[in-house]
Amino acid sequence: MRNISMSVIRRLPKYHRYLRDMINNGIDRTSSRELSDIMGFSASQIRQDFNHFGEFGQQGYGYNVRHLYDEISKIIGLNRSYSMIILGVGNIGTALSMYNFGNYGFELKAIFDNDVSKIGRNINGREIMSMSNLEKYVAKNPIDIALLCVPAKVAQGVADRLIISGVRSIWNFTSVDLVGPDNYIIENIHLVDSLMTMTYLLNEE
Amino acid sequence: MRNISMSVIRRLPKYHRYLRDMINNGIDRTSSRELSDIMGFSASQIRQDFNHFGEFGQQGYGYNVRHLYDEISKIIGLNRSYSMIILGVGNIGTALSMYNFGNYGFELKAIFDNDVSKIGRNINGREIMSMSNLEKYVAKNPIDIALLCVPAKVAQGVADRLIISGVRSIWNFTSVDLVGPDNYIIENIHLVDSLMTMTYLLNEE
Repeated sequence: MRNISMSVIRRLPKYHRYLRDMINNGIDRTSSRELSDIMGFSASQIRQDFNHFGEFGQQGYGYNVRHLYDEISKIIGLNRSYSMIILGVGNIGTALSMYNFGNYGFELKAIFDNDVSKIGRNINGREIMSMSNLEKYVAKNPIDIALLCVPAKVAQGVADRLIISGVRSIWNFTSVDLVGPDNYIIENIHLVDSLMTMTYLLNEE
Repeated sequence: MRNISMSVIRRLPKYHRYLRDMINNGIDRTSSRELSDIMGFSASQIRQDFNHFGEFGQQGYGYNVRHLYDEISKIIGLNRSYSMIILGVGNIGTALSMYNFGNYGFELKAIFDNDVSKIGRNINGREIMSMSNLEKYVAKNPIDIALLCVPAKVAQGVADRLIISGVRSIWNFTSVDLVGPDNYIIENIHLVDSLMTMTYLLNEE
């Protein structure tokens, strides 16, 4: 079991975004009430969320925006860098290889595919490596996050290789619900599920 | 208020995926128990979910996979096509313009940007149109879904134009929490939030 519930964890990036906007707008000081007004969570939920991690505010003063932002950045783990690899350079893999994930210290280290017509080609200044070199590469270069962008039918097989070779987490862009060991970190972006939620709602009206 | 809760609605695409896999694997018949084993929802939740929409199974027989798949496809709204536009052709917008959203009848109709160096260029066989023509275009071509891929600082402004001009829903790839009228359909893909959830978990261990 994790100490902090996933619903709290998933709110942290949102606090981070709103506090960054406040800094950019020159706002020094805020309160759970004010954050509640702009974010749509209740003030008491916001105070509870922060209390899981420490005492960030002062009675009668509220929160120093910069301090709260820095603390939440640390809690999210943005005080260090993360090594990434991409598996599969179809449309989404190609896009992600060019995507700028903010200036948060994410370092794309290598890109793999098993299509011989792609291996050796350059993408955004990086050579596409053969998937057969995956284990050898990861043994020498510890990887925090693998972006899984391979076709659905090979997704679990590639995920198994990533897990066994010691890659610490998988950001899953395939349509497959991957299976891994307990507490192994798998985060899903199911684009088609998201789209089908919209089509349902479009027909409900 | 919607009739069906969002948590039920968000499970429908997952049923759709698993039933499609069953069809592909030649499986004719299933039960809530069997679906529970492979999907991780409880059998009673699965029966409850289906009961919102009708009687799809038979006591003692279970479900006919093909029939259930067809019914869920209809409920999701996959028995018709959807018109789409893309706003903003940075990295993610470009990728999405090439992405194949399955064979579910999504039709990318037009692509807009306001960068003069991009307007008029071709992307995947489609000419990039000027954002200034958005309202005129949408008035002539009803649009179901707008893929919003513009920079964060202009996101709400472009969303307002989409809503006013009658685009029926927004698939939001920006980092902004958009504001729209009650019940206006906005579906978010917050890539950076997803990534920060991972970094949190990577540091929790």
